[in-house]
Order: sequence, then C-alpha cells, then structure tokens
Amino acid sequence: MTSTDDVGLLAPLWAGSPAETATSDRAFLQAMLDAEAALARVQDQAAGETVTAVTSSAARFDARSLALRAQAGGNPVIPLVADLTAAVAERVPEHAEFVHRGATSQDILDSALMLMAARALDLMAADLAHTADVLGTLAAGHRHTPMPGRTLTQHAVPTTFGLKAAGWRALVLDAQERLARVRASLPAQLGGAAGTLAAFGDQGLSLLAAYARETGLAEPELPWHVLRTPIADLGAALAFCAGALGKIAADVLVLSRTEVGELAEGSGGGSSAMPHKNNPARATLIASAARQVPPLASVLLGSLVAEDERPAGAWHAEWLPLREALRLTGGAARATTVLCSDLVVHPDRMRADLDLTGGLMLTERLLTELQPMLGRAVARRLVTEAARRASRQGTDLFRDPELTTRLPAETLARLGDASRYLGSAPALVDRALSRGCGHAGTNTHQAAPAPESQDAP
Amino acid sequence: MTSTDDVGLLAPLWAGSPAETATSDRAFLQAMLDAEAALARVQDQAAGETVTAVTSSAARFDARSLALRAQAGGNPVIPLVADLTAAVAERVPEHAEFVHRGATSQDILDSALMLMAARALDLMAADLAHTADVLGTLAAGHRHTPMPGRTLTQHAVPTTFGLKAAGWRALVLDAQERLARVRASLPAQLGGAAGTLAAFGDQGLSLLAAYARETGLAEPELPWHVLRTPIADLGAALAFCAGALGKIAADVLVLSRTEVGELAEGSGGGSSAMPHKNNPARATLIASAARQVPPLASVLLGSLVAEDERPAGAWHAEWLPLREALRLTGGAARATTVLCSDLVVHPDRMRADLDLTGGLMLTERLLTELQPMLGRAVARRLVTEAARRASRQGTDLFRDPELTTRLPAETLARLGDASRYLGSAPALVDRALSRGCGHAGTNTHQAAPAPESQDAP
Amino acid sequence: MTSTDDVGLLAPLWAGSPAETATSDRAFLQAMLDAEAALARVQDQAAGETVTAVTSSAARFDARSLALRAQAGGNPVIPLVADLTAAVAERVPEHAEFVHRGATSQDILDSALMLMAARALDLMAADLAHTADVLGTLAAGHRHTPMPGRTLTQHAVPTTFGLKAAGWRALVLDAQERLARVRASLPAQLGGAAGTLAAFGDQGLSLLAAYARETGLAEPELPWHVLRTPIADLGAALAFCAGALGKIAADVLVLSRTEVGELAEGSGGGSSAMPHKNNPARATLIASAARQVPPLASVLLGSLVAEDERPAGAWHAEWLPLREALRLTGGAARATTVLCSDLVVHPDRMRADLDLTGGLMLTERLLTELQPMLGRAVARRLVTEAARRASRQGTDLFRDPELTTRLPAETLARLGDASRYLGSAPALVDRALSRGCGHAGTNTHQAAPAPESQDAP
Amino acid sequence: MTSTDDVGLLAPLWAGSPAETATSDRAFLQAMLDAEAALARVQDQAAGETVTAVTSSAARFDARSLALRAQAGGNPVIPLVADLTAAVAERVPEHAEFVHRGATSQDILDSALMLMAARALDLMAADLAHTADVLGTLAAGHRHTPMPGRTLTQHAVPTTFGLKAAGWRALVLDAQERLARVRASLPAQLGGAAGTLAAFGDQGLSLLAAYARETGLAEPELPWHVLRTPIADLGAALAFCAGALGKIAADVLVLSRTEVGELAEGSGGGSSAMPHKNNPARATLIASAARQVPPLASVLLGSLVAEDERPAGAWHAEWLPLREALRLTGGAARATTVLCSDLVVHPDRMRADLDLTGGLMLTERLLTELQPMLGRAVARRLVTEAARRASRQGTDLFRDPELTTRLPAETLARLGDASRYLGSAPALVDRALSRGCGHAGTNTHQAAPAPESQDAP
Repeated sequence: MTSTDDVGLLAPLWAGSPAETATSDRAFLQAMLDAEAALARVQDQAAGETVTAVTSSAARFDARSLALRAQAGGNPVIPLVADLTAAVAERVPEHAEFVHRGATSQDILDSALMLMAARALDLMAADLAHTADVLGTLAAGHRHTPMPGRTLTQHAVPTTFGLKAAGWRALVLDAQERLARVRASLPAQLGGAAGTLAAFGDQGLSLLAAYARETGLAEPELPWHVLRTPIADLGAALAFCAGALGKIAADVLVLSRTEVGELAEGSGGGSSAMPHKNNPARATLIASAARQVPPLASVLLGSLVAEDERPAGAWHAEWLPLREALRLTGGAARATTVLCSDLVVHPDRMRADLDLTGGLMLTERLLTELQPMLGRAVARRLVTEAARRASRQGTDLFRDPELTTRLPAETLARLGDASRYLGSAPALVDRALSRGCGHAGTNTHQAAPAPESQDAP
Repeated sequence: MTSTDDVGLLAPLWAGSPAETATSDRAFLQAMLDAEAALARVQDQAAGETVTAVTSSAARFDARSLALRAQAGGNPVIPLVADLTAAVAERVPEHAEFVHRGATSQDILDSALMLMAARALDLMAADLAHTADVLGTLAAGHRHTPMPGRTLTQHAVPTTFGLKAAGWRALVLDAQERLARVRASLPAQLGGAAGTLAAFGDQGLSLLAAYARETGLAEPELPWHVLRTPIADLGAALAFCAGALGKIAADVLVLSRTEVGELAEGSGGGSSAMPHKNNPARATLIASAARQVPPLASVLLGSLVAEDERPAGAWHAEWLPLREALRLTGGAARATTVLCSDLVVHPDRMRADLDLTGGLMLTERLLTELQPMLGRAVARRLVTEAARRASRQGTDLFRDPELTTRLPAETLARLGDASRYLGSAPALVDRALSRGCGHAGTNTHQAAPAPESQDAP
Repeated sequence: MTSTDDVGLLAPLWAGSPAETATSDRAFLQAMLDAEAALARVQDQAAGETVTAVTSSAARFDARSLALRAQAGGNPVIPLVADLTAAVAERVPEHAEFVHRGATSQDILDSALMLMAARALDLMAADLAHTADVLGTLAAGHRHTPMPGRTLTQHAVPTTFGLKAAGWRALVLDAQERLARVRASLPAQLGGAAGTLAAFGDQGLSLLAAYARETGLAEPELPWHVLRTPIADLGAALAFCAGALGKIAADVLVLSRTEVGELAEGSGGGSSAMPHKNNPARATLIASAARQVPPLASVLLGSLVAEDERPAGAWHAEWLPLREALRLTGGAARATTVLCSDLVVHPDRMRADLDLTGGLMLTERLLTELQPMLGRAVARRLVTEAARRASRQGTDLFRDPELTTRLPAETLARLGDASRYLGSAPALVDRALSRGCGHAGTNTHQAAPAPESQDAP
Repeated sequence: MTSTDDVGLLAPLWAGSPAETATSDRAFLQAMLDAEAALARVQDQAAGETVTAVTSSAARFDARSLALRAQAGGNPVIPLVADLTAAVAERVPEHAEFVHRGATSQDILDSALMLMAARALDLMAADLAHTADVLGTLAAGHRHTPMPGRTLTQHAVPTTFGLKAAGWRALVLDAQERLARVRASLPAQLGGAAGTLAAFGDQGLSLLAAYARETGLAEPELPWHVLRTPIADLGAALAFCAGALGKIAADVLVLSRTEVGELAEGSGGGSSAMPHKNNPARATLIASAARQVPPLASVLLGSLVAEDERPAGAWHAEWLPLREALRLTGGAARATTVLCSDLVVHPDRMRADLDLTGGLMLTERLLTELQPMLGRAVARRLVTEAARRASRQGTDLFRDPELTTRLPAETLARLGDASRYLGSAPALVDRALSRGCGHAGTNTHQAAPAPESQDAP
C-alpha cells in the first residue's frame, strides 16, 4: 500500500470478494487493453497479434501514472493510448499505427466498462444461483414451520418460515433474471469521434460487428456514446438486486433481535467488549449495500440525459457509481450466499413467539368459525369482548370463560392452535418452488394454477 | 378549488395531461373501488353485483374525508372499507359482510396502484409509439443532412441530423419496451392479513387466480406485500423513460440556443418582457422531469427492503413517489410527442455551423487520406501544422498554402466538404429504422448484420 | 373534488396538516399574488393599492386555468400576469401598466416559493418546539429508567430511556436550528429579465431593498435566479429534519414490536381484520417521510447547477420536490408532536427485557470489577467461561457456580443489577437538557463542561 | 499496484489531488490510530506514550489484512484493536490493557471519520478561498464587460461577465461558509458499548472532554452513535459545495461551446483524433462531480434514521459515500481553482454575440424609452411590429424604417447599444465584492443598502 492506494479498508462487505477482483483498477486496465487488442485484431492480423501480446498483462502498464495523466483530457484512455502505442512501437514499429485506429476514447472506455460489468455479473449470477438453491431447501424444509406473521411490527396472523424463505427465493430469482437480461445485452462500443464510424471508411459496420464478436460482447444497433441504455439498465438491475438481498437482510435483522431470536447468523460477528454478542454482521453489511445502491443507480439513470454526441459530465459521472454499484451488489450477493447457507433457524422460538399474544393472532380465525354457529353479530361481539379481556388481563383468549362455556374444549384447542391456521402458506411454498432457477419469466403466474389442496388439519 | 385541493399549479408539465387524469385522487379512489368490487364478485355473485353497483362511481365517496381519516390507521383503505360497507349495507344489508372479506388494506391499495399504473402506462405507450413514428420520419428525411457532431461541447467531426433522430428513436423504443415489459407483469395483490390467504380457507389459490382475472391484472406467483418487484420495476422503467426523453430535450435545448439555431420548438414559449424570445419551453419541462424521476425511482427501488410481512414505512413511502413518477413521465411522454411533431429543423444553420471551424473538423479525414500519399510521419506533421495555422489565424484549413501547393484543388474541395465525411451515418440510420416499433428486443443487434453499403460520395 | 383535483388521498401523513394548508395550490397562488402586490406597491403607491386590493383573495383567480395555461411558457406566472393585468385594468385602467412592471416570471415565482416555505417553516418550528418540550419532560422523568442498550439488534449494555429521549430531543433541536437558520435567510427575488434589474433604470437596488421589506423576506445580496443557495439550503434542512424525526420513529417502531413492548403509541392504528393490533401508525408514516425527503433534497441540491441567467430545467425541477419536502417534513413534524405527547412508556417491560440475557449484558462490568481482585488474565478467563456456560445453558451468569464460589453474594447481587450499570447516562441527560430550545449552537459542547457527578449507586 | 488495489484510474477528477491523499486508506488507518492513541493518553500517561509511539506510523500496520478481517465483525476497528494490542504488548506488555479501553469500535471509527473529514475540509477551504480571490479579480475586471444574458438557452437582455463572475464568487463563499460551519463542529466520538460511557465509571464525562481536546475535535454534547448530525451536515455541505462549483462548470461549458466561444479553459484537454479540439476537460470533470455528490448526500442524510444505540446498516452505509463525497468535492475544489485561474475570457466574442439577434435583446429598453414619448399603446405596437419585422427578415431592429423615421439617429444609436443597457449589473458587482471571504453571513443582504449610483452611460 502506498500512501494513496485503496485496499478496501472502508468496505468490509466487498473487500476480498470476487466482485472486488473483477472490478479492480488492474482489472479495468486489463479490460481497456483487451478492447484495444480486439480493435487492432479486426483491422490487421499481424498488428493485432502484436497488440494482443503487448496487452496480455496489465501489470506492464503503470496504472497510477495513467490515473494521474487522465485529468488533462478527462479520461484514462488518452494516456493509455500513448503508452500502448509506445510499447507496440518498441516491439514492431509499423504496427503502432494500428493502435486505437479509428477509435475514440469512449469506444475503449465503454467497452471496458461492459467487459468489467460482464465479468462481475457472471460472478453474481453464480452466487445468486447458489443462494436460490439454499433458499429452496430452506423453504421446502420449513414448509410447515409456523411463525408469527408480522405487519407494521406487530404480530398479525401465523405464517410459515417456509413461505418467508420462498419469498426470499422469489426475489433472488427476480434479481437473477434482471441481471441475466442485462448481461446478455451488454454491447461493445465503437463509433469513432462522433459516432459515425467515419474513420473506418466504408468498413464501419462490418468492423463494428467483428469488433463486437472479438470482445465477446453484443453488437449494438447503433454506437451508444449518448444512448446510455446499457448503463441505465445496469444501474436499475443492480439496485434491484441490492434491494432484493436487502429484504433478506432486513428480515434476518428483525428475527435475530435478542427478544425474537428466531434466526441467527451461523457465524455472527463478535464484539471484543461484549463476549455474549452474536451480531448479525453479514446481514448488517448487506443492509448497508441496499441503502447505497439505489442512489448510485439514480446517477446512472440520470446519465441517459447526455447531450450532443458525447456529453460533458454525464458520461464521466458514470464510472465511479457503476463500479461501486457492481462491488456493493457483488459483495452483497456473496455475503447473502454465506448468510443463507449458515443461517440458524429456531423453530422452537418461532413456536413460542406464536403464543406471545395469548391467541389474539387467531381472532380472525375464531370469528370465521363462530359466525356460522352463532350468527355474525353474536359471534363478533363475543370474540371482540373476549379479545379485549384477554388483552387487558394478559390471559389466553382461548381460555376466556365466555368462550369455554360456549364451545367444546376440543374445538377451542383446534382453533387456538396457530400451527393449524396457516392458510395457503404451504401450497404457496410449493407453487413458488416450482419456479425454476434461471428460467425466463417473472414473479407472475399468468396461467391459472391447478387447484392445490389446502394444508388442512 | 378549496383551500387545500391541488390543481396542478406547480406542474405545467403534466397539468391537463392524460397522465394527470389517470392518476388523480379520484382515479385512484375508483381503482380502489374496482379492486373491492372484483374481490366481492369472486366470492359471491349477488353481493358482487351489489358492490359493483355501489362502486361504479367514485364521486359517491368523499375522497377528502377518506384522506383525513386515513391517518389513524396509516392508509386510506381502512376508512374506505367503512364507507363502502355502509353504502352496501344501505342497499342490501346482507351483502355488507362480503365487502373486503378476507382481504387486508394492502391487498386493495396495491391492486389499485397497479390499476392506476396500468392505465397510465397504456397512455404513455401510445405517446411513445407516436413519437417513435415521428422520429422515424425525421430520421429518414434527414438521413443525409449534415451537421456538426459535438463532443464535450466542441465540434468534433460531422454527423447527420438523421442519425441523431435515429438515436432518439432508439431510446424511445428502448423505453417503450421497458414499460411494456413492466406493464404486462403488473400483478393483482391478494394475500390477506399476513400473505397466507388464511381467511379464505382452502379457497386461497383459486380466489387469487379469479381475483386477478377479474381485475385484469396478472396473477402473482405469491402475494407480494413484501416482495416489491412490481414497484421496483415501475420505478426503474419510469426513470428510464424520463431519462430517454430527457436526452431528446437536452439535444433540443443545445441546438436551439441562440448561437446554434439548428432546431427550434414549433410553438416555443413566449415571454411577456421579451417579445423576440422563442423559448424551448417544452424541452425545458421535459428536462425538468428527467431530473426528478431517477431520485423518485431510488425511493421505489429502496422499498424492496421491506421487513416482515408488511413493513412499517417502506410501503407507505411508495405511494407518492410512484404517482409523481407516473405523472412526470407521462407528462414528458405527451410533451415529447408534441415537441417532436412540431420540431423545426434548420438544415441551413447546420450546414453553416459545419464551417465554423474552417475545416478543422475534417483533420481526421485529411490525415487518413494523406497518409497513403505522403507517408504517416509527413502527413501527420503537415496536417498538424496546417491545422495549427488555421486555428491561430482563423483561416480555412483547406486553403492553407502548404496544402494547396501539395494537393490538387479538386482533392482539397472533396476532402474539405463536410457533407461527404459522414461515415456510416446514413447506413446506421437505415439499420436503426429497421427496428420495429413495439417489437421485442433491445438496442443490441446480435446477429451479424448483412454488409451494408457505405454512403459513398 | 373534480376529476383531477388532489385532496391528499395518498398522503395520510400530511392530509389535514397545517403544512398542507400552507403549501396548497391556493396558498401558492396567494403567495404569487402577494409578490405581485408588493412589487406594485414599491413602484407606485396608488397602483400598489389597486393591485393589493385585487390580489387580496386568491379565490378570485382560476387556479386550474392558470395551471393549464402554464405549459406554453413553462410557468404559471405568465398566465397569472395576464389575468392580474386584466383584473387591475378593469378596476383602474391606468394602474394595469404597473402590474409585474420590470419583473420576470422567476422574480414572482421564486418570491412566492420563499413566502410559502417561510410559512411552512414557521409552522414546523412550533411543532418542533413543542416536541422538544415533551421530550425534555420524558428525558427528565426517565433519567434513571434502565432499559437494554441495543447495538446491531442485540442487547449490549444497559442504558436509560431518559438518555434515549434526550438524544431524540438533541436531534429535534438540531433540526430546529437548521430550519431556523434557513428561515431567517429566505430572500425575496427580484432581478428582471436577466438579473440586472435593468428595467428599473437607476432604481434597481433601492427597489430591490424596498421590495424585500414589503414581502417580509430577506434582501438578497444579488438576484439569485441562478444562485440557488436558498433552495439548496431548504432541501438540506428539510432532509435533516425528516431524518431526525425518522430516528425517533425508528426507535418507536423497534420498541413497540410485539416481542419488545417497551413503548406503544398512545393511539395506535387499528386493524379491521385484527382487533388485537395496536399498530404504530404514526411512527410508520413518519418513517415513510424520512425515506422520501433525502432524495427530494438531492434534486434541490442538484439544482445549484443552473446554467446561464436562467436554466432550462433545473429551476423548473425545484417546484414539486420543494413543496413535497415541505409537506412531508411538516406532516412529520406534526405527527411527531402527537407521537411523543401520547407515547406510552412501559418501564416494567424495559426492566424485564434487561434480564433476557441472564446477566450477559453485564460481562463488561463484571470483568472491570474482577480484574483488580483476580488479575487480568484470571478474571478474563473466569468471566468468558462463565458467560459461555450461561449462554449455552440459558442460565443466569451471576448464578454461575464458579462465580458464586469466588465472590460474595452481595457483590454478585450488586454487579448483576443492570440498573446500577448506567454509566454517565443520567449525567448525560442533565447535560443535554441544559441545552435550551431555540438557542444558537449545535450538538457540540465546546466549552469544557463543569464536572458533573456520576450517577453513583 | 496489486491485483486489487485502487489507484484512481476511474477518478481523473481527484487522482493526485490533496483530497485523495487526505482520504486514502492509509490516511484513514492513521486517523484510527490517532484516535486510539488519544484515548490511551487520556487514561494513562505512560501507556499513552507507548500507544502513541506504536501508532505513529500507519505503515506499520497491514491495511489489506485489516480490510479482509473486517468482514467478520462488520468493521475494521475490531481487527485493528487486535493488531494494535499485540504491537503494544510487544513493546510494553502491561500497557496493552489500555488499548481501546472502555471504547467501542464506533468510537474509533467515527472519530477517525471526523479527523479525515477535518483534514479534507481544511484543504478545500484553502482552494475555495483561492478561487474566491480569483473570481473577485475577474468580477472587478469585467464589471462593465457586456455579454448576452441568456435564459432558457435564449438571449434575453445584456448582462456583464463581471456580474456572472460575482455570482460564481457568491456561491463559492456560500460553500465556504457552509463547510466552515460544519468543520468547526466536527465532534470526537466516545460513548462506549451503548453510549453511556459506562466502562469509564464516574470518569465518563471528564474523559470525553479530555479525549475531544486530545483529538483536536469538538466535544460532543452527547455520544452521537445514533445522533448522526455531523454526518448529515457533512453530506449537505459537500453536496452544496459540489453543486456550487458545478454551476461555474455549467456556465463554462456553455460559454466555451464552439458556437459561443466567449470563454475557454486555459489548458483544455486535447484529443488524439482531433487536434483542433480544446475540450473544457476540467469543467467536464467538475460537472461530473456535481452529478454524483447529491445522491451520496442523500445516503448520508438518510443515515439519520439510525435505530437503537447502534444501527445495523445505516452506520455502515455512511463510510464509502462520505469518503467519495469528500474526494469528489475536494477534487472539484482543486480543479475549480485551476479552471478559474486559467480561464480565458473573450470580451470580443461576448460583444459580437450581443449583436446576434440584431438588437432584439433591447426591445424591453426601447419600449421603456418610447412609452413616455409616444404613449403606451402606440409605443408597444410600434416596437412589437418592428421586432417582428426584424426577426422575420433577419435585419437589425434599430434600422427598422418605422423607427428611423420616428426617432433621431443618435437616440437609436444610444438605445441600440447593448453595452449601455446593463442596469444595476456593475453596482451589483461592487455590492457582491464587498462581501468578505470567510466572514460570517450568507447570501442575504439584510441591512437596507445605501443607495448606490446606477452605472449610467
């Protein structure tokens, strides 16, 4: 570490993650070199080989010097072309003229951004797929595990942990699809000085196609110097993914609270001062990413407003937010995989918490059952008064004297069993799990579902 | 207007627009009523008819009263259910129990948001389609109209207005596709108190399907109280659309500057103080929308982080930003249609501006042509020195004495004609125009293109 | 309600609040009229009287018509000047020429924004002052009320509810100071067509001063058409205030969770489906505001980048976000006043929750006490092992056999009493409460504090 | 550069800037060490000396290792304390127990953030002061230099470049004041595990005061683990500053357009492909910062919503945005100093551009002068028709036959001289320049100004 290098000290989420490596300055430098090499190869075979050889290792170039010399022209490609031209000239002088030939800085920088994004997205895809698998297992295994459903922080009616996990998985699949869609469309950039490919004479379109193939990126319909669809799409998809993972983290944070204790991180963070603490450190860091990425995405979406044939500011404002969004989301994807794989589930605590409100979570059910027996008005009065008594006295609703005199004990026992008021939760789990990983489609279920049996007692 | 009603006074972009009508409080109230009616219909035919009759007109309900009573419970559905139940009871007392039966507030409010969004998106789709048509005509008509390509505010090399218009159209099509994708997936919401459909007994899944059909919305895979994919997708797609239209506005603003004058709004805004002004008022308002929507989208993307089975704040934070994003984007879509339809193009000014830099925009071309004739080193020195002289003296590069002594006049005349250095611009226009309106696909051209002939002189 | 009027249906936080009335379209229209009247008065006494009479009631003007006619020129002042001129001409024809004389639309619109903001800020100031009072009382009353301190969702060491309330109060005072500072500096706007006051001949500066006095706003150093300090400052201060109130809401939401139950809203929101629920509805709505205002502020801060003498978009993008930020923050200020005034505190639940971890929250204290007695190494080993046993077995740390054999029972009883390990919490409460409402200063305590006695047992 | 170190390759604005050095990982590591050393010194003199010696150089610690080990607990202080304790123990074993004694991670990390911010802000203050000086000179020198005032992209009425520069300076002073205010209040952080200073026994408050003195930071009224005023204030002030500098950049970008040419960067960025280009590269990079910082600030303002005694996510989400905001704003401050110092002003082009609209910019003036002579109605008709003719025919308004027949040539010459219609522009420059650098106060001029003489012809 020199006095200015950054090594991830303020970024515990992504320091050491695959996303960090894929988006490091060296990786970006290599991506720019890869773009230059591809451009040379499609214009001249021999020169292409020379340039490819020279660019095979980013370590040959002085990234710090490039960074410092980038200010004069506003981007790092200008000094890079100088250094690359010199390096090629040293090897085969007459090949130097093929370096960057016909291109503009933005062609190389944008192509490199896309290569960097593609690599980072591929890593995320693997982590998300793994997470979806783990969550699928969790959901199936806890299909019937009852726990309190909570709305506006209060116990509402029972749900199952399986349904919660199935919901998490649905969001992970949604994120996966959005990232995959963007990944497939990441285009190479080539337009020349003002996007007309003019320096390539009548070879413009064929060179564009060849260059795209050579980089492994999609061929754009038009040079996109000021048509920033790929950047905007990346911003939106990354913010989506960070948010989806943030939902999982938010639930883990609530459910691992000391008072709740229904979940715990398998390897929570310790505290030197407080040996008893098992902090949900991973969930915390994932949550921190979910706060940061949407505003970064708003910068990227805002960059669509790019005037002229190359904008003075909008383009330059994309680079740091895009990389940070890739890192934060990639770091979150990795952390979520670990979080879900190591998650400790406490069905006993879930069960115990169900009883915290003394059966009040089941008033809806009670009412539904009593109405046919007692009539709507009587049933409602009875239940409301019993609930009020139970709530005031802190007693169990299903032991209320008015109820016990009117209803047989078995009925009350059945109605008061929260684990038997799960509605369609198990069926919903099955339905959600039938959605395959990586399949096309979104979180909608257009075709009418086959009737699925209720999880009856 | 009472003392608190808003009538659009601070919103010249969308006041009076179709998007305003589709998202007004009355429209939203009607959407909530439509959701309640659909819910009643799928549970009981007779009650459904009564509820449908009662809900047929939002005007029957006191929206202001609902707004004021919404604070106690945190949303307007709670008082609405009270009023609706009373209205139904008045008509057919025994049908009152079917009102809102088995549902939770969020079921109705979310379904209403989706209905409102669907209607607003359909209106936008029409405007975008119209705009794409107009831009297609502009692009085809100005396929060969040369104008200065500008990068970082400076003249770079020539381009054509047709290519610029084709780029605008590509962004409009991109926006259209993103909105269409979201539109098709907007789901109905039904989950009951905690998303388990428990109050529906073993009818949960079939009721969910029937309810979705009845509302005309997609059937969700899972109740999505805390799986906010549709909201996040709406935010992203609307920000994309606003940004795409903002690019058009940004270009119009630059090109209609007094000093540039290459474009003008057909019916620009006047100024009482300055009768000579023809302000690009529409472009200005569209640009203002593009600044506002991405941050609103960041709120919507952030709402993915929704804890528990209903979050305390994240859900409530969606309503205003979503509506404002719909209005701003819808207003911008309408304004862009008018802007593009009425746009005045001044090819003469474009042509004149090409000469502003005395041929300096063509140094790239000159260099390319001279290199085979004079060798790379000599050519580069010659051109660089001539350009420096021309720039310093404000003379025309192609009349430089060194050049005129070395090159025949005809050659110089040809090389100095900016309208003959358009590269692949016209071919790119053709290629872009082959992309159909509303077709699937994005701004990438995956298949290798057939070689297209260069627009040779 | 007509088909397009908004009545606050989607805004339960601010519907019916003072902030809504202060920022309604009618209020804004009145503010524009007030600005026009002030401008007329400082130029001609008789005309000023006529204009003042005509503008005395916004109801005389058709706000909807103004909204619709605003689009052509991009702002509502242009049609307003037409209508106002006509209305004045009808009364005293020769006074019509004094309407809007020498001004530009932005002079009136900006002055009206400042008047609207001033009125809304004054209302917030009153609510914040009230809240600070209530919180001061809560803090003083609960100076010694122990409760678990929670970090990263886990119990850490004890704190007091008084310290928490004192912290809330400190943030409210911080917000109050920031709003007061902005309020005092809100300037009138007057610059004429391009900010030079040219149409006023040599009276420009004196008219500017007189106009500012007449509006009751501060006199700007320069016309600020493109020097948007007041707007940026408003954005920052409102986001601060919304965030500060959001902190209170966040704590209330956590502490009123079913499992925690240490706080409750006095009049929580009910639920038709679940009669037992006492939703923290106010805290929820306040939390929703805290999510929305910072992104709105980012638009306002971004509007500093206003090109030329009046920008094409940046200015127009301020209006809606500024008003929404005023409403959301004003609504949150009012709701927080009610929330804090009605807050139900359960010291018994706080006390009970302290014991949830069986004394583990006090390991830090135990260690500190044992070290001098047993030596650092022995003490640390002893405590760590005992804590591990207690945690594993779910037993009470202070009943651990190793500890009870080594330490006298009284010592263990003292060390194990969480209410006696409050550190400087009570002293910090006193110190925080010595900060006066509305006094200058910020949350720093620059002068060396007088030694305050520790709250010793 | 290792494979993961960042060296500023994507950040041409701040690579190599003082802000980068002040906020590097090494600088932050040193700041954490400084905080630990201060904490040791105030607790034990001898141990303090040892810790101070060990922490004197960040290079002794392995920042990358700290970064990697930070993930487990969620922040880098936990591993740092381990390494620091070991290093101190190696030197003086019995001093090791004083390392981090009584503190929590957040105490050190927050104090380090404040130290880092303080250093970065001091550097910015110097740059802003220099910029204000340069702009003061520019404003004074161009007090009378006429140029077109532009509104909504169109020529409006004349202004002076001096007034524009004076406006820029006013914004720079506003930024300076806001940063200075925040700088003075940056507080040390010390609260212990849950903000009660409990581990310090009855020494809490006195240690807090001593620690603040030792760090050179302000003493906080309360530990501010969850009272994030300093972070929110930093976010707001940095966004303000970036926006203020972005206004200067925006104007430079417009005025250096090829067609306008009234300003140029002294050392604009070149282009390898286009030797004639003199790109406004500095203004471009400053503009890119102004797009990025407000959304980062929205994250920081959002972090006010920090639940409990330490939040799970909100705190962790502050670190990267705060540093990036410091770097972008610090880089922009430095770049603006260079931009303004080297700015090339072309009064001749300004003068020429004034004539572009053939006198139409002076219709307001003409009308004002003619009204007393011809009566309001006649004057208005005459001017409107003449302006329409001039505009349609592209001729000079002041040579319109109707005008020349009615008015003496000298009068027309005087009225048609744009440089004599500057209104109060020069007087406003003087007034703005009387505002001192660094003085308290904001951009309002509360006291009634002494009447200043109009800059009469």
